[in-house]
Amino acid sequence: MSFTADRLLLFGATGDLSQRMLLPSLCALDADELIDDDLKIVATARSEMSDTEFRNFAREALEKFLPKDRRGGMAHFLNRLTYQQLDATTLEGYDELARKVGEPKNGLAIFLSTAPSLFGPTIKGLQHAGLDGPNVRMCLEKPLGTDLGTSCEINDAVAAAFPEDRIFRIDHYLGKETVQNLLALRFANVLFEPIWNSNYIEHVQITVAETVGLEGRVAFYDDAGALRDMVQNHMLQLLALVAMEPPTSFDSTAVRDEKVKVLRALRQVTRGETVTGQYRAGAISGKSVPGYDEELGKDSDTETFVAIKGHVDNWRWKGVPFYLRTGKRLPERVTEIVVQFRCVPHSIFAGKGATMQPNRLVIGIQPEENITLSLMAKVPGLDREGIRLRQVPLDIAMPDAFSGAVRRIAYERLLLDLIEGDQTLFVRRDEVEAQWHWIDAIREEWTAEDLKPKTYTAGTWGPSAAIALAERDGVSWHDE
Amino acid sequence: MSFTADRLLLFGATGDLSQRMLLPSLCALDADELIDDDLKIVATARSEMSDTEFRNFAREALEKFLPKDRRGGMAHFLNRLTYQQLDATTLEGYDELARKVGEPKNGLAIFLSTAPSLFGPTIKGLQHAGLDGPNVRMCLEKPLGTDLGTSCEINDAVAAAFPEDRIFRIDHYLGKETVQNLLALRFANVLFEPIWNSNYIEHVQITVAETVGLEGRVAFYDDAGALRDMVQNHMLQLLALVAMEPPTSFDSTAVRDEKVKVLRALRQVTRGETVTGQYRAGAISGKSVPGYDEELGKDSDTETFVAIKGHVDNWRWKGVPFYLRTGKRLPERVTEIVVQFRCVPHSIFAGKGATMQPNRLVIGIQPEENITLSLMAKVPGLDREGIRLRQVPLDIAMPDAFSGAVRRIAYERLLLDLIEGDQTLFVRRDEVEAQWHWIDAIREEWTAEDLKPKTYTAGTWGPSAAIALAERDGVSWHDE
Repeated sequence: MSFTADRLLLFGATGDLSQRMLLPSLCALDADELIDDDLKIVATARSEMSDTEFRNFAREALEKFLPKDRRGGMAHFLNRLTYQQLDATTLEGYDELARKVGEPKNGLAIFLSTAPSLFGPTIKGLQHAGLDGPNVRMCLEKPLGTDLGTSCEINDAVAAAFPEDRIFRIDHYLGKETVQNLLALRFANVLFEPIWNSNYIEHVQITVAETVGLEGRVAFYDDAGALRDMVQNHMLQLLALVAMEPPTSFDSTAVRDEKVKVLRALRQVTRGETVTGQYRAGAISGKSVPGYDEELGKDSDTETFVAIKGHVDNWRWKGVPFYLRTGKRLPERVTEIVVQFRCVPHSIFAGKGATMQPNRLVIGIQPEENITLSLMAKVPGLDREGIRLRQVPLDIAMPDAFSGAVRRIAYERLLLDLIEGDQTLFVRRDEVEAQWHWIDAIREEWTAEDLKPKTYTAGTWGPSAAIALAERDGVSWHDE
Repeated sequence: MSFTADRLLLFGATGDLSQRMLLPSLCALDADELIDDDLKIVATARSEMSDTEFRNFAREALEKFLPKDRRGGMAHFLNRLTYQQLDATTLEGYDELARKVGEPKNGLAIFLSTAPSLFGPTIKGLQHAGLDGPNVRMCLEKPLGTDLGTSCEINDAVAAAFPEDRIFRIDHYLGKETVQNLLALRFANVLFEPIWNSNYIEHVQITVAETVGLEGRVAFYDDAGALRDMVQNHMLQLLALVAMEPPTSFDSTAVRDEKVKVLRALRQVTRGETVTGQYRAGAISGKSVPGYDEELGKDSDTETFVAIKGHVDNWRWKGVPFYLRTGKRLPERVTEIVVQFRCVPHSIFAGKGATMQPNRLVIGIQPEENITLSLMAKVPGLDREGIRLRQVPLDIAMPDAFSGAVRRIAYERLLLDLIEGDQTLFVRRDEVEAQWHWIDAIREEWTAEDLKPKTYTAGTWGPSAAIALAERDGVSWHDE
């Protein structure tokens, strides 16, 4: 179904994601002349608004969330926008919406950025108004369910109107530059693949650390928790990209076939392989912050932190732990993957200066996107006590090697792929289900053990048990 | 025989090497307080000179050849120097020399920087004067013979007075920072060793290019030629370090055991695997220069350029060509090793921007010492025609990673090792003999084929046949 959409229909157009990410991304793509002039964008939401009012609303969002130097074509972009008020829960409004969308020349892309409870009614409305034809593709934002069962319900509802090759499930981490660069690094260099296995890699760490607390996501977050909010989607996608076998090509089927194999090979987590936590009052960057219970206004058993020791049961990864951790109110905002190689099997260098550190590849995703390969090199000098060695961090990152490149929002890439119909960086249904399968088993284990989150002070790296989880194996979390 | 010498006896103390390298290196070591205060240096040569006159001579050399910022302790250093005139060919003077040297507390290191024809008489003189005891070590500079036979004669003469563990044969390339760094890189990182073989390395290039011509070395050079002047010693040492198996430790026996195994595994070169050349008038950096025949003042069959396609016949290197080339009057002065990895076996990236270049490690030895690893990375951006890739050169070199480090003369390291008695970076007799064995066979082949050097224009990269030697295998010389 390869067509370039010339209509984009945006549900939830007045929402937070739309303001922060979607409108700015589309405007930036427009400014860079990456989308065709004939692409019209129809925005819809519950509020009553005229086209002009929505354009003003959009302008405000752009001025707030898009850097000034990327707003060049703003007027041009705003002209693409029209708005249609809609109560998504009743069928009536969809005919009017369809008239507003009009007859696309090539096709229509729909972006559903609404509460999951609206997915079902919205699909029905679209079907009712004939907005589900072969030239329509559907893009969905998380959360897609809260477990395998509810996820299947949503996917079934969408599948009733759209075949899988026209469903685009967003995981915006896949739109990040360094995440794609990880694939380039692994598969465009002969250097890494021979050592990308349990013979040479000791362990992998994936960290998604936030400094923020609840931030108004009260209702949603307390029902979800860190495991479902972060691990089920983003972190498992990162894990899959690190661990997957080389696909035969960089296309949607080949890449997703390999990712799903990894997700299905995840070993069921057992007792003692997870740690959960919930923050209490503390301080971040010297500023005191309240505890989760205070923010929520009640007691809760929801985890705001989770650490997991995972395993991928296949030939390549047998015996290599994948340590995952994510949490709110941690000391710094950082998303990164650390691939820790083994020590050399035997050191030929003795003496005081020969302290050898194993090689390490750090893929930074937030706040900076960068990739650092740490090697050992000789310290220049005369080395009277044996060769002196030092760790040399090599920046494969963008800033040095590709200075001047624009830092794009991850959604720019994904929206462009949606418009053009490339599914490679979108999540296939079987992946989502494999992710939930593993996550649900963890939650069942917690229930069986009656595991409650341990408290941790805001501004620390989670409960001390999370440190112990890694240290028991002689592994330290990469906190720098 | 581990003692730190407190006497250093320098033969050929008024010669070119002494002025340019040995005195400056010793002075720099002194300034950095790397040699003991009680080390006395006795200089000797044929000229009549007082201690004071020699100190003045040394001061002039230091002012000429040692950077100003490294001359801090010059007065202190000059005070270590005394001088003794000697006719090395007659026994008489050696008793006087021995008196000048005096009785060392720990031991004596002798540095022989004289014509090889004086080696025999000098050894005899030293024996006569008792300067060959168990607390004496002997350091020799090249050339050590002109073939295996004459090399053995010299080594036999020295061996009559000194056991191998007190003979220090200099190859100053081994004193270079990046040459030692190559070993650190190979054996202190788990990353390289698994791919350091014929499965992943396509070929190795070693280039020693000079821009100079004969430079007053008329008599010596025309008897030697490029093969014996450069390949037999420096280039084969570099090859051995690239190709050797991991030694059990970085000590003299283990390292040299591994190097000699490589040198003995060199496959005998056959017809068509070498190209020789001799330069004719041309231009270097826009300045016209005469041909070798003009500089020499007569016709000659001596090669001023040689290119060799070599092989190391062992499991690790089967099928990997080692291309060596060296010459005078080439376009630039450069010494470097290029380790060219194979392409990835299969590219998953299609499209316009996915031109993939194989990984490459370049070890620069002259004029700059640096190490560059070239990887492929994704070009940041939205890649509408498939992922765009670009080669990213990573500097493992000193300037970036270790800024502020002093650039030392290679002889500093080697003289300090001589004084302290560490043979690791000196060449053992069996290595020299394995080197000559391979070199002599090449010269025999040339004689059998009646091969004469092809002419090449000064300022070019040698005869076109040298280009063809590599290009026949689809390999281009690394000229940048």
